[in-house]
Amino acid sequence: MPACRERCEPQPCVRSDLSGPNWMAPGFVEPCRPEQLSIQLSGEGLWPWQDLSRLDEAQLRARGLELPLADFWTPGKGGLAQAVVGLRGCTGAFLSEHGLLITNHHCALGAIQKLSRPEQNLLENGFVARGRGAELPAPGVIVWVFRAQRDVTGEMFRGLPPDASDLDTALFLRNREKELVSECERTPSVRCAVSRENDGLRFFLMENTELTDVRLVYAPPESLGAFGGETDNWRWPRHSLDFTLLRAYTGPDGRPAPFAEANVPFTPPIHLQVSERGTAVGDFIMVPGTPYRTSRYRTAREIRHAHEWFYPRREALFSRWISVLEKAGDLHPEARIPNASMLRRLSNGLINTRGQLEGIAKNRVIARRLSEEETLRAWIRTNRFPVPEKALDELNAHLEGVQFEDLDFLLGQMETGTSAFAAACLLVKWAHERTLPDARRMPGWQERDRAGLLSRLNAGDLSYHAASDRMVLAMFLDELDGLDPAQRPAFHVPAATEEDRRKRDEWLELAFRTTTVMDPAVREALFTATPEALAQSTDPLIQFALLWFPAMQDLERRRLLGEGALLRLRRPWMKATMAFRGRQFYPDANASPRVSFATVTGYSPEDGTWHVPFSTLRGMLAKHRGQAPFELPAAFLEAAQQDNHDPWTDPHLEDVPINFLSNADTTGGNSGSPVLDGRGRLVGLNFDRVYENIAGDFGYNPLRSRNIMVDVRAILWTLDRVAQAHDVLGEMGVTSRAGR
Amino acid sequence: MPACRERCEPQPCVRSDLSGPNWMAPGFVEPCRPEQLSIQLSGEGLWPWQDLSRLDEAQLRARGLELPLADFWTPGKGGLAQAVVGLRGCTGAFLSEHGLLITNHHCALGAIQKLSRPEQNLLENGFVARGRGAELPAPGVIVWVFRAQRDVTGEMFRGLPPDASDLDTALFLRNREKELVSECERTPSVRCAVSRENDGLRFFLMENTELTDVRLVYAPPESLGAFGGETDNWRWPRHSLDFTLLRAYTGPDGRPAPFAEANVPFTPPIHLQVSERGTAVGDFIMVPGTPYRTSRYRTAREIRHAHEWFYPRREALFSRWISVLEKAGDLHPEARIPNASMLRRLSNGLINTRGQLEGIAKNRVIARRLSEEETLRAWIRTNRFPVPEKALDELNAHLEGVQFEDLDFLLGQMETGTSAFAAACLLVKWAHERTLPDARRMPGWQERDRAGLLSRLNAGDLSYHAASDRMVLAMFLDELDGLDPAQRPAFHVPAATEEDRRKRDEWLELAFRTTTVMDPAVREALFTATPEALAQSTDPLIQFALLWFPAMQDLERRRLLGEGALLRLRRPWMKATMAFRGRQFYPDANASPRVSFATVTGYSPEDGTWHVPFSTLRGMLAKHRGQAPFELPAAFLEAAQQDNHDPWTDPHLEDVPINFLSNADTTGGNSGSPVLDGRGRLVGLNFDRVYENIAGDFGYNPLRSRNIMVDVRAILWTLDRVAQAHDVLGEMGVTSRAGR
Repeated sequence: MPACRERCEPQPCVRSDLSGPNWMAPGFVEPCRPEQLSIQLSGEGLWPWQDLSRLDEAQLRARGLELPLADFWTPGKGGLAQAVVGLRGCTGAFLSEHGLLITNHHCALGAIQKLSRPEQNLLENGFVARGRGAELPAPGVIVWVFRAQRDVTGEMFRGLPPDASDLDTALFLRNREKELVSECERTPSVRCAVSRENDGLRFFLMENTELTDVRLVYAPPESLGAFGGETDNWRWPRHSLDFTLLRAYTGPDGRPAPFAEANVPFTPPIHLQVSERGTAVGDFIMVPGTPYRTSRYRTAREIRHAHEWFYPRREALFSRWISVLEKAGDLHPEARIPNASMLRRLSNGLINTRGQLEGIAKNRVIARRLSEEETLRAWIRTNRFPVPEKALDELNAHLEGVQFEDLDFLLGQMETGTSAFAAACLLVKWAHERTLPDARRMPGWQERDRAGLLSRLNAGDLSYHAASDRMVLAMFLDELDGLDPAQRPAFHVPAATEEDRRKRDEWLELAFRTTTVMDPAVREALFTATPEALAQSTDPLIQFALLWFPAMQDLERRRLLGEGALLRLRRPWMKATMAFRGRQFYPDANASPRVSFATVTGYSPEDGTWHVPFSTLRGMLAKHRGQAPFELPAAFLEAAQQDNHDPWTDPHLEDVPINFLSNADTTGGNSGSPVLDGRGRLVGLNFDRVYENIAGDFGYNPLRSRNIMVDVRAILWTLDRVAQAHDVLGEMGVTSRAGR
Repeated sequence: MPACRERCEPQPCVRSDLSGPNWMAPGFVEPCRPEQLSIQLSGEGLWPWQDLSRLDEAQLRARGLELPLADFWTPGKGGLAQAVVGLRGCTGAFLSEHGLLITNHHCALGAIQKLSRPEQNLLENGFVARGRGAELPAPGVIVWVFRAQRDVTGEMFRGLPPDASDLDTALFLRNREKELVSECERTPSVRCAVSRENDGLRFFLMENTELTDVRLVYAPPESLGAFGGETDNWRWPRHSLDFTLLRAYTGPDGRPAPFAEANVPFTPPIHLQVSERGTAVGDFIMVPGTPYRTSRYRTAREIRHAHEWFYPRREALFSRWISVLEKAGDLHPEARIPNASMLRRLSNGLINTRGQLEGIAKNRVIARRLSEEETLRAWIRTNRFPVPEKALDELNAHLEGVQFEDLDFLLGQMETGTSAFAAACLLVKWAHERTLPDARRMPGWQERDRAGLLSRLNAGDLSYHAASDRMVLAMFLDELDGLDPAQRPAFHVPAATEEDRRKRDEWLELAFRTTTVMDPAVREALFTATPEALAQSTDPLIQFALLWFPAMQDLERRRLLGEGALLRLRRPWMKATMAFRGRQFYPDANASPRVSFATVTGYSPEDGTWHVPFSTLRGMLAKHRGQAPFELPAAFLEAAQQDNHDPWTDPHLEDVPINFLSNADTTGGNSGSPVLDGRGRLVGLNFDRVYENIAGDFGYNPLRSRNIMVDVRAILWTLDRVAQAHDVLGEMGVTSRAGR
């Protein structure tokens, strides 16, 4: 029985503290007993480049790392970090010296939608560029290539009066940020950002090259790229080919440039090699990317607040919102298409919310955090660490005193969830900000942001449906009615009687019938109007936005105040946390680059069940129902039914692997993150997390923190057998072909 | 890493033909690759005692059998077979020399319900008899202890004219059966039955001792015995403590006797030892019992007919029936309790039906059977086996010609699914049968069946709700309206207009208002009435039953005709099948004793998922929601929360195992089957199959044929820690106690 032993012995069996109430068993090639699986195999940690040197490289080598950690990033020398790019809320990676890029299909969805025409429906049919000339400019896609980073903590605080108020501190730091960014962006095509690390203990200036001529090379049909749709979203078992190929271009001189026929492919500083062998259960992998936000160091009080206040409110609001949009679709069938993407967002958000609520409870996050806090308090006392033990109490007391939370929650959602009213608010705010010198404006409202604001203003056009938007605004006004009167702005009079409600409905009806803010030409004119001109406007929604403007400014002010207070209150506790955790400490995600070191492994979603970490082509075929979201295209079915899939077949699975699981530490923003083997070769593409890991943002759980990736062999098989994209495969250095 | 190797090496790794499209991986202590799992480990086969000698005993020993197969049953000597008893559609087993019996909670449910009073609700609270004097007579429970069996094939056919028609053959065999049974039952308290094996190639006379004084010793609360209720029914992961303890009594002389205070515990010929160690993944187990029916040798045409005709009809009828009863519950809230058990039966039947439909498709049963038939045809040709190859064609041609199937399906359901109409039909039929000499009556309608018929007549009283019963009968009349006119009896006039329908409703309303068939006193009088007296009755339902009587007799006649024809047509094909399969052949289940040899193992319900074969106490606690069907009683929660569960803790799971899976070949009637280890000790109690195995009746699938058992350690832990039933544990020879 040699095969048995072969699969047992390579497994590290080290005593660990992983045993938990729901631990069932490792997957089928993980025969070690649960308690033998080492904590060292846990994928916890989102490591920024500057912290890599703090890691135990020998231990990572023992796990499977085969390249020096310095290869990720060495200042002045570059590194693998430059093969991994940012993509507006997503991650991507260069796969060739000619600027070929891979990211998720869902990360390029907007561009693919915009490129789709009834006569050439790229969303429905997918796209293969036959030759470079056939590549299509991908509207709205921007690629940021990492250039450099620099610790600017000292510069951030230089000159801050020691007795500055919280509000002044927050404004001071925002202004300093703007100065640093504006100085940094003097180099053409360089975009900069200040990254706050460790609750404001460290600030880094991040420098990226911005590439705006990005073209579509290959997109699978949506039926493959989003196979399983909302039904499978956040779920395992999963069978999604959520990948797309793009190409970045520059001017003929090699410098970033807007789209032009004469442009040439961008030459990245470095690109990833593609593994043709893929990965296997128990294998070491690395997942670099730009994770958006985690909350690993929030206090127990904050998590309880999220669990008892924020998520229940979001659940209730999103549920109501979904029924409003569904009702709109019933009343106005033509509203269904424009409302579809908002409904998808809300339904996704609702699953996320429920996952947070369930996960925080199931993982006992609050109790654990409380006990960690007790441990840390004791450690501070014992070690006489120079941080007042009462730092935590002060932070919690401040949080307890936060006011207007219900109002701010509703205003925040209204700001982003409505179309016409949000456009009116943006116009009012923009007019107001433009009365200030550029350097004094709020971040996001400077001259450098003009194009972005304009495109934000125009972005909603495709999804605008007046009656639906009116019903959503009516819902928000209803919600505002329900606020505690102490929070409700004075000018907002609740509809107390049927008569009030009728009047409000009449006004809404009139407002949406006569408003011109959704007319692109009018809106563009209003974009350059002065506050005085706006005040003269007879547009009811502009008038309504002007009415709300002070409340919105108050919200902004409360945000700044909170920012300043938290900066002051969090830092001492964070300092103690860092000292206590030592080398185990990693900072929360904040959209700047991170890497997670992980292991390919399954998990137990519930007692008696084990999620095996690989799904297969035959499993995908078994899900095919002939209708969306489980409808495989004919070309795919034909290719799948052919016998010879070598070399894209996994020897153990005896099939083409489609998706796989690992315990990598990922979150939103890691969509499109390349998954690398120990030698840095591409073995997969991250695209989702499992439902049981939604609450992982608040605390990594070795038993349930799992992310979902497209297996590189599924990508190569699709390009080889379904898309016949052999040129692209050649460009990626892939020489194997199936069926030979 | 010694633990790893330990768990690998004991696994047999033999090349097998188990690889299938949905095979994922063996469970966590089955590290062999799928293709290394031997077919020898498959649990296929329901072996009757007389066939045990045909088995490869050495191979079973290699798998883990540690007792001689002859220990199950040696004619004249007895054996383990006598520790396993029949229990009206269920199985049970003796656990002590004092007649202590174990079976499923759901097998004793009727008795527990009848024993329940508002002031002493055994169903809700469970029951522990403190001392033998406290044991309660279990109404309706009858135990059959296997005594002997004898091949009576020769006797069955002796004297059958060679040219007998199909109808005459069927009647002849039924009469001969009755003669044999009646002769056999001359011994007091012996109940006999003729078991038809192999489609009528063999007949066995089965002899059982009947024990009617059976008492309740221990029943868990329904919340434990049916934990998970309909939600978990047919599902894994499962956490049900579906067991009950009974005790059989005899007269003081040791002979079977009805209940009497002076009775003494029955001394079984043999009883099972109880394992305190339980079982583990990969272990060999044996599951003896009285499985009701399998259809492993039906032709592809028959399975297609089941898939395309029978199950779709049943699905439609049951769905409609469920909505009728739900509507009845809405209209008449007091109907909910009496209708509950029928709704449960229908919902269970509906899941079963859907499982059959899905399973037949997913397991590709029809295509496989077709290919087996082709192989067998070729084998017949090659070997010139003396069975006409056209036997199969003739059988299929006969099946194709079967008439009145839609009508017979509806009548069959009406016969068992209505209360008042069914009672009226029974009274009419019984009056008619009693005009015939006992030996000429239909089986089931002889004097020996009088008590059974009377109890059948009374059984429905608790669940009778007139308005609901009327609505169900109205549904059947509607269904009959929809029949092809060629099948519809002439006297049944469809309700073509609203007016017809109104009249029918009026008649139904009158009939159910005035009928007396549900009045126990009246009904008992009608039970002795002559056909003439019934004809004079003014009871509208008696009159309606008289109207239907000829149609019901026709149905009976068609059944007999079909029986005779199939006996003639199936035997040649079965003979060829047996010769072709040789030692691999086992007969279909037919409610006589069988044993399955199996392995404890998980399975993959779908790609990417593995059902781990053990569930645990912590998993059960995780399902607790505080409301039915996931509501654990306080005493259970308290016991569960205590730390020390040794010795009922599994060393690998580090918890008390609750349920486990194996690949044993089981079906309805195996409820309550003891699960034995290689030495014949009790390690579990079978109580269900998994959803993916519902269609297993048509063909065992090594990948998905899994049954669900209560782990003996869950039983012992419950008796020890929750019920504090230490006397009973002592009686079972169990000396360990937890928490010491």
